[in-house]
Amino acid sequence: MSPRIIRKKTGNFLEDFKPGQLFRHKGGKTLTEGLFALFTDFSMATNPLSKNARYARAHGYRGLVCPPGLVMVTAFSQTVGDISENARANLEYIDMRFGAPVYIGDTIEVETKILGVRPSSSRPNLGIVHVQSTARKNLGAEDEAVVMTWQRKVQVYKNDDKVTVEAFAIDPDDIECSLWLPEYDAATDYAALSHLSSADSYFEDLEVGTRIEHSRGRTVTDEHIALTGILDNTSQVHCNQQMIDWNPKQYVGGKLIIFGGIPFILCLGLSGPDVGDNALGETIYRTGRHTAPLFAGDTVFAATEILATHDHPERADLGLVDTRLFGHKFARDEDATPDDAPEGWKKIPIFELDRQLAVKRRSHYSR
Amino acid sequence: MSPRIIRKKTGNFLEDFKPGQLFRHKGGKTLTEGLFALFTDFSMATNPLSKNARYARAHGYRGLVCPPGLVMVTAFSQTVGDISENARANLEYIDMRFGAPVYIGDTIEVETKILGVRPSSSRPNLGIVHVQSTARKNLGAEDEAVVMTWQRKVQVYKNDDKVTVEAFAIDPDDIECSLWLPEYDAATDYAALSHLSSADSYFEDLEVGTRIEHSRGRTVTDEHIALTGILDNTSQVHCNQQMIDWNPKQYVGGKLIIFGGIPFILCLGLSGPDVGDNALGETIYRTGRHTAPLFAGDTVFAATEILATHDHPERADLGLVDTRLFGHKFARDEDATPDDAPEGWKKIPIFELDRQLAVKRRSHYSR
Amino acid sequence: MSPRIIRKKTGNFLEDFKPGQLFRHKGGKTLTEGLFALFTDFSMATNPLSKNARYARAHGYRGLVCPPGLVMVTAFSQTVGDISENARANLEYIDMRFGAPVYIGDTIEVETKILGVRPSSSRPNLGIVHVQSTARKNLGAEDEAVVMTWQRKVQVYKNDDKVTVEAFAIDPDDIECSLWLPEYDAATDYAALSHLSSADSYFEDLEVGTRIEHSRGRTVTDEHIALTGILDNTSQVHCNQQMIDWNPKQYVGGKLIIFGGIPFILCLGLSGPDVGDNALGETIYRTGRHTAPLFAGDTVFAATEILATHDHPERADLGLVDTRLFGHKFARDEDATPDDAPEGWKKIPIFELDRQLAVKRRSHYSR
Repeated sequence: MSPRIIRKKTGNFLEDFKPGQLFRHKGGKTLTEGLFALFTDFSMATNPLSKNARYARAHGYRGLVCPPGLVMVTAFSQTVGDISENARANLEYIDMRFGAPVYIGDTIEVETKILGVRPSSSRPNLGIVHVQSTARKNLGAEDEAVVMTWQRKVQVYKNDDKVTVEAFAIDPDDIECSLWLPEYDAATDYAALSHLSSADSYFEDLEVGTRIEHSRGRTVTDEHIALTGILDNTSQVHCNQQMIDWNPKQYVGGKLIIFGGIPFILCLGLSGPDVGDNALGETIYRTGRHTAPLFAGDTVFAATEILATHDHPERADLGLVDTRLFGHKFARDEDATPDDAPEGWKKIPIFELDRQLAVKRRSHYSR
Repeated sequence: MSPRIIRKKTGNFLEDFKPGQLFRHKGGKTLTEGLFALFTDFSMATNPLSKNARYARAHGYRGLVCPPGLVMVTAFSQTVGDISENARANLEYIDMRFGAPVYIGDTIEVETKILGVRPSSSRPNLGIVHVQSTARKNLGAEDEAVVMTWQRKVQVYKNDDKVTVEAFAIDPDDIECSLWLPEYDAATDYAALSHLSSADSYFEDLEVGTRIEHSRGRTVTDEHIALTGILDNTSQVHCNQQMIDWNPKQYVGGKLIIFGGIPFILCLGLSGPDVGDNALGETIYRTGRHTAPLFAGDTVFAATEILATHDHPERADLGLVDTRLFGHKFARDEDATPDDAPEGWKKIPIFELDRQLAVKRRSHYSR
Repeated sequence: MSPRIIRKKTGNFLEDFKPGQLFRHKGGKTLTEGLFALFTDFSMATNPLSKNARYARAHGYRGLVCPPGLVMVTAFSQTVGDISENARANLEYIDMRFGAPVYIGDTIEVETKILGVRPSSSRPNLGIVHVQSTARKNLGAEDEAVVMTWQRKVQVYKNDDKVTVEAFAIDPDDIECSLWLPEYDAATDYAALSHLSSADSYFEDLEVGTRIEHSRGRTVTDEHIALTGILDNTSQVHCNQQMIDWNPKQYVGGKLIIFGGIPFILCLGLSGPDVGDNALGETIYRTGRHTAPLFAGDTVFAATEILATHDHPERADLGLVDTRLFGHKFARDEDATPDDAPEGWKKIPIFELDRQLAVKRRSHYSR
């Protein structure tokens, strides 16, 4: 007798989400050195806090510090199975705040609350889901702490177009999460380490009203498939070419699309030598969004506009810098005569992030 | 004076194997976090025992547990140099049993005994070699233990077609190897962790006579070259395209062929959410074989048939589940009108494994 | 008001280098297990000192030993930003000596002194820079030590062709750096481990006047982009295809060129089974150079000529072996009728290295 075939429904659809529904996501992730090496280095990150354990410990950290980009993609990927398995597009990151530092060996677990659903007026099979997620490390241990909290809006498909979905919206929770900073130790010879970071990205160097075109680009290959899987994000549009070959019209570009977390961390990393190297951390990404898809073979570039600088309310050795981070790529366009690309090419914006960093002052950390 | 050229013969040929010959394989392998991260995540494994150190320790393990697939490919690869360097095809895995758990930092060493040789009646340059291999960890240390033992049959070339090879067969050794299981601790709040694994793959959920079509696929790229090398399997058909370019007719598909261990672990991983997540381990793979080759660009899919369920003879908290794991891919076939593929495509079975798992009971591990 | 655009100059040009100028390079690198696994295994290294922690500790090391090739590319890459960001070609490695062993968890930092500059007589926009670099580990800790020191000559562009650059040359520093060797312990049963390394690459086996054609090849894919980034070498010719697409004539082959460190370590690894497996370390690379570029899709092969053998001045258990390591690849050439390649193909030398190893004697380490 032939077996009874089971094909399970995976992920949630628009109509499945209820107000205040809480997901404690499957899996969790222990940050191994393997994961750390792959991502920190893939992202072109240059902050020596993530490269050089001697430098990190001298600044008051326990060891190599996971870059905020890696914390972000690790935590975010934990939510994909429950929240965006049946998504069409990730619309916006909102109020993404960082807390305790993450070290190699920490275990991150994430939960998400459903804040709102709004069916689309123009497309009967789609709607927007608004969620709030919080990532903690080392639950039950002495150093248990919130490492990150954020909201996001994502466009999700209905399972059944004919079902009526009622809109709802509830307030986000007030999650305590602010950037942990090591003490400033006046007895430490920080200047003796200053050659290890870039010389011209201290707080005093960053000038409001400038836009720094970061000098490096990174061509992304089909390596993205493995990188995305390593985050446990098994969303099929990133790793199942067969599915796309069967329905090419249904999928953007007819190719595997690169998980948005990858240009996210790449842009953060590319900004490093000019903006990130002398940051002790990032406090908040107020808003962020992807503006065009990325595919294997594309080359990612980035730029940063310095919007504002502030004294840090508690720390004389640091300053806060508000920036906007831009990611872009280029494509051929025979008719293009642009200012911002070679002739015959056009620039395509792919990513934008409002990003605040806590940056070291030369006065306290260098000569 | 020009130097005397040396080209060494590598690997053994059919006529080299003798009854009862024992190989203590070169190298050995310390399981670094790098190896662990790459493979556990490449394989799409979802069992939190391999992802989340908090979960693993709560269940009684020392830390992250190496998935059986990773133990298998690591141990198996140690045997390639001596046994299958000159093989044409790996025919069958037999009686593959798992023992002590493997953790990051363990060092695995393998030895192999030759059980039999049978020259081919139809092809004068080939024959079948039957071997038995045992992998141990941490030789000489307190926690030295057998982690795995198995037999395999492999089709190997003769070096000299004209040599007569006498068939022989000896009995396998009786190797003590049974799956180590942590104690069930009634005081542990396992249910508080249950959200970390899938909710519907407990022993009580698995129904004899069903076939679960696992929902995910994974396109394998030329990443396989590096993955195979990382296992120290330097068999040239996996990594030397030049050799194939010189003799395309001699090599299947005229392309680098993917090491069988890769679809092996991928199928195990793809079955995770439906079958493997709530297993504490795998007891035995009674038989397994590859039925078609895999190449870069292919997408691997999997399905599991539930064949039988049994109480565990010693453990009330677990049940034993006999399954058959199937791996397949698809290829274009203009004339195909199949039931099990879209029109114009045909399904190609690539892998089969009779697999028994020790699975947690909801009654003991969840609410 | 639109922001003021900043595009920073990156790297140094020929006219920037001054006699005796000292660079303490940015970053530093803590050798994580992730980095270790990727490179040791990518390079096809077979020495069990880098594979098997039990073997390494039995020989007197603290744990897995980083292969000299990995130490080399890690240290070398630290110098790229300051020295060869604007280079056309790396011309020669000179007097590369190894010191203290490098283990997982060690932090490497590098400094470089400018020894000389010589403008090109034939090309007004180029010149040769001669530098001396020294890599140390664990600065400030008890086990701080020199791990490597070397000189190199590199061809660098001028920023402004019209600037006159005066030639200069100063003497190299006398850097204390000799290969650390663990004690020979007559009470250790080394022979019980001897099956873990190759049986025929002891000191007694290596015969002056022979050339060993190593049996393996390795096709390098676009994996090189990620591997190079993981070393923090972000030189754009390795990872920015867009830059090349905009100016294909300016770049060799119109494709991303593979960082020279990659064929360097690959050739070292490919020689392992025949030459390197039973070495406790490499003492010196007297001279080395790349003779043709390498691109994704090329397959690397290697050969070793045994030039001379010597007793070790202090160690009866070891001998010193002078070798020349050759790397090559093949390309189609319709008219070629070579001795050293199949018909229609020609052999292209890509790398040469004068390499001395400290090799175990069978008399002391095996039966």
